[in-house]
Amino acid sequence: MLINGQAQDLLSVSDRGLQYGDGLFETLAVIDGVPALLDRHLQRLQAGCQRLKIDCPDIGLIKQEIALEAKAVVRGVLKVIITRGSGGRGYNPADAAQPSRIIYTAPWPEYPDNYRTEGVNLRLCRTRLGWNSQLAGIKHLNRLEQVLARAEWRETTISEGVILDTSGQVIEGTMSNIFAINGSEIATPKLDQCGVAGIMRGVVIEVAQSLGYQVSEQRISVAQLKQAEQLCCTNSIIGIWPIRRFEDVHYAVGRFDQQLLEGVMALGFSHEQAASR
Amino acid sequence: MLINGQAQDLLSVSDRGLQYGDGLFETLAVIDGVPALLDRHLQRLQAGCQRLKIDCPDIGLIKQEIALEAKAVVRGVLKVIITRGSGGRGYNPADAAQPSRIIYTAPWPEYPDNYRTEGVNLRLCRTRLGWNSQLAGIKHLNRLEQVLARAEWRETTISEGVILDTSGQVIEGTMSNIFAINGSEIATPKLDQCGVAGIMRGVVIEVAQSLGYQVSEQRISVAQLKQAEQLCCTNSIIGIWPIRRFEDVHYAVGRFDQQLLEGVMALGFSHEQAASR
Repeated sequence: MLINGQAQDLLSVSDRGLQYGDGLFETLAVIDGVPALLDRHLQRLQAGCQRLKIDCPDIGLIKQEIALEAKAVVRGVLKVIITRGSGGRGYNPADAAQPSRIIYTAPWPEYPDNYRTEGVNLRLCRTRLGWNSQLAGIKHLNRLEQVLARAEWRETTISEGVILDTSGQVIEGTMSNIFAINGSEIATPKLDQCGVAGIMRGVVIEVAQSLGYQVSEQRISVAQLKQAEQLCCTNSIIGIWPIRRFEDVHYAVGRFDQQLLEGVMALGFSHEQAASR
Repeated sequence: MLINGQAQDLLSVSDRGLQYGDGLFETLAVIDGVPALLDRHLQRLQAGCQRLKIDCPDIGLIKQEIALEAKAVVRGVLKVIITRGSGGRGYNPADAAQPSRIIYTAPWPEYPDNYRTEGVNLRLCRTRLGWNSQLAGIKHLNRLEQVLARAEWRETTISEGVILDTSGQVIEGTMSNIFAINGSEIATPKLDQCGVAGIMRGVVIEVAQSLGYQVSEQRISVAQLKQAEQLCCTNSIIGIWPIRRFEDVHYAVGRFDQQLLEGVMALGFSHEQAASR
């Protein structure tokens, strides 16, 4: 693990990342030493820093440190955390010192292979997402809502939970984005008030459009999810999982668009694609 | 600084307090080695742990460690942070290890004495608080909204900012609770959807009631704040500050109830009271 370029795994308690969740993170797949979709992740990181007015550390430097940490990893997860650093006076960030950069790899989470081919089960969470347009879309460190939502179930037969916002609209999964497919139309929730705009979500939108789908970001109700022909959820580690069941509704996973699935996996995880970005 | 009873000031990056803001904190005034309103703070800490389903460390142990850290402090701030600890799988807290407890003191923030006698200036923040009834009231580590709100101004002539919720109702200050006084009636925002239920807020309610005020927690609009005869804001460090000006409205600080002010300060900060709790 590298903290500000030094090999260590301990951070000052005074860091505002711990004190207030005053920072951002990215989670990337690493395959044969190559971090997938690196530039997209770094772009979102920079956008997040801009939103929180954190002075983003030099991207070239972050890339060097990522390469160093990733190079020996055959298959793993790489995490980048940027915080505003220590200092400031209470919540006031005005006199905070240098931002902290934390880069490390972790083992690949071993999900069964048939999740991708046969789909997974989804539940509806009771925990709701509060609205805040300033925080919507970015991957900041205030994640208690996701923790509470994920803590709602322990059954290993359920792989993901759908979270609604306070108005009752569908926003995302606890760790993924959600898509509803009807014929040649694909819809995914608008993330202007809450939710994380996943990197894999962006890839899915692009791949789907290139395959001739009409893709729209819109308000989606639970009823619309239940009435959809097919559902899937996506993130940078799992790629794309078709949904087999959501609460009491079963979906025809067999019909799930294999082209879409393969296109996303190729764009998201192939070494060549990742390296060339 | 004590981390899990050990004298150190570095925490593992894997701690969920940093990773997700998965924890709680308390900020106490310490005067002549005595932490003020200790039992009330520890009760809120326990209530917060219960809400987040964090296994709260032994309160007797926490008290011992607080006494150790506070004993040599003439006038200072004591902070207690409890996190869910390291572990779990992503957001899922199911297999998290032991909660972490972090206890340390910091210098007293030197506010001018006349803040209490002459009052302070208040502004209206653009940042809004999202609704989440599961997180409302407790003092958790997800504080980006407060950081963003406090970052809105740098003028030293303004001491606090009023934050509204997404529906436009008044909730609190960036670091304090707010009261509006009209004759014998005192109103303070209801905190069932967002906001922090401050310890000093509780003290003010009790003292005001004992002085014969009718105190109610209710929805309060910006217009109602502006029309109030008097305003004040409160927290465990500042105690109680009358408001001299809120945006373009001036208030008659000279008329501010000295009995209320003195009652709160005595209950909040006197050694005997604090020690006897």
